[in-house]
Amino acid sequence: MALKIYLAGPEVFLPNAREMLDRKAAMARSAGFVPLSPDDVEIEKKGDLAEVALAIGAADEAMMLEADAIIANLTPWRGVSADAGTVYELGFMCALGKIVYAYTNVAASHFERVRAHYGEDGLADGPGMWRGPDGLRFEDFGMMDNLMLQGGVERRGGKVVIGNAAPDALYTDTTAFAKCLSLLARPDER
Amino acid sequence: MALKIYLAGPEVFLPNAREMLDRKAAMARSAGFVPLSPDDVEIEKKGDLAEVALAIGAADEAMMLEADAIIANLTPWRGVSADAGTVYELGFMCALGKIVYAYTNVAASHFERVRAHYGEDGLADGPGMWRGPDGLRFEDFGMMDNLMLQGGVERRGGKVVIGNAAPDALYTDTTAFAKCLSLLARPDER
Repeated sequence: MALKIYLAGPEVFLPNAREMLDRKAAMARSAGFVPLSPDDVEIEKKGDLAEVALAIGAADEAMMLEADAIIANLTPWRGVSADAGTVYELGFMCALGKIVYAYTNVAASHFERVRAHYGEDGLADGPGMWRGPDGLRFEDFGMMDNLMLQGGVERRGGKVVIGNAAPDALYTDTTAFAKCLSLLARPDER
Repeated sequence: MALKIYLAGPEVFLPNAREMLDRKAAMARSAGFVPLSPDDVEIEKKGDLAEVALAIGAADEAMMLEADAIIANLTPWRGVSADAGTVYELGFMCALGKIVYAYTNVAASHFERVRAHYGEDGLADGPGMWRGPDGLRFEDFGMMDNLMLQGGVERRGGKVVIGNAAPDALYTDTTAFAKCLSLLARPDER
């Protein structure tokens, strides 16, 4: 019985959304899985916008309930952290005890990205602890995002694959995604 | 039996973290609830940083499993969207079928914040659809963040309270949090 994998990520927002969703789904199929993608279900685009939004959310959650696993694209999205919708979905799947994998196409750690966000080194504030010029704390745990994300995956036996895409291919490079698929395809190496 | 509420949010990163965590916990107790906060459990700070991070995540998840409800502080955090750890926790609690409430201290919608992020109006790209100068799409659903978040709360019968704190009190104003508590305290009005 082929594993059903929910392909979470911000691909739906890309200029080439359909192409990227199709490419990732095809790769998952080639690796022997059944892909489920956020855009697979046709949502009736009527009613007010809030109703449409609720219907999209409901459809995505239904796919997650059906899926056996998730591969979450946690590449930073308009800021330091991953796309909020994808993070919600990762938490959702972790709570359900599903098989959880994730990747990012940015090699710099969360700590390094927060420092870049502030445009300076930040202020050291104790061992492994820093503050931005705004006084808000950030920690140097070597994680790729907030510790709940990487911890949620790794404590369940999943892997977070750290890619390193070219700046103009942050959302189209599929190297790290392919690595997730190959890890999932070899359960003995998970 | 008093409801146990997990108080999710980025308060742990504030300069006055302890004060804010204590203030929110005291407010929850006054409203008749048992508060559970991310910093309630003492984590042994030894081993390497990754081990400490995993232990913190495990402790927070254990508190969520124990809790009956969550109130998630989704105020934007270093960018357009809410703190990634809090978003993970919201998804986690939604999946478990817990009682879910959330708030933000920023009145501007996600759509308005993305436009501000780009420093311009963005490019109209069809009904209710926009693109940033980087080509990435954003939608005008009138939601306070990615639709998965507000949808996840509202479809479960919870409420997302939209506050409007002063810019220098974004992370310390408790008006919207208090409103969540009062909604939770009157189940007939939930």
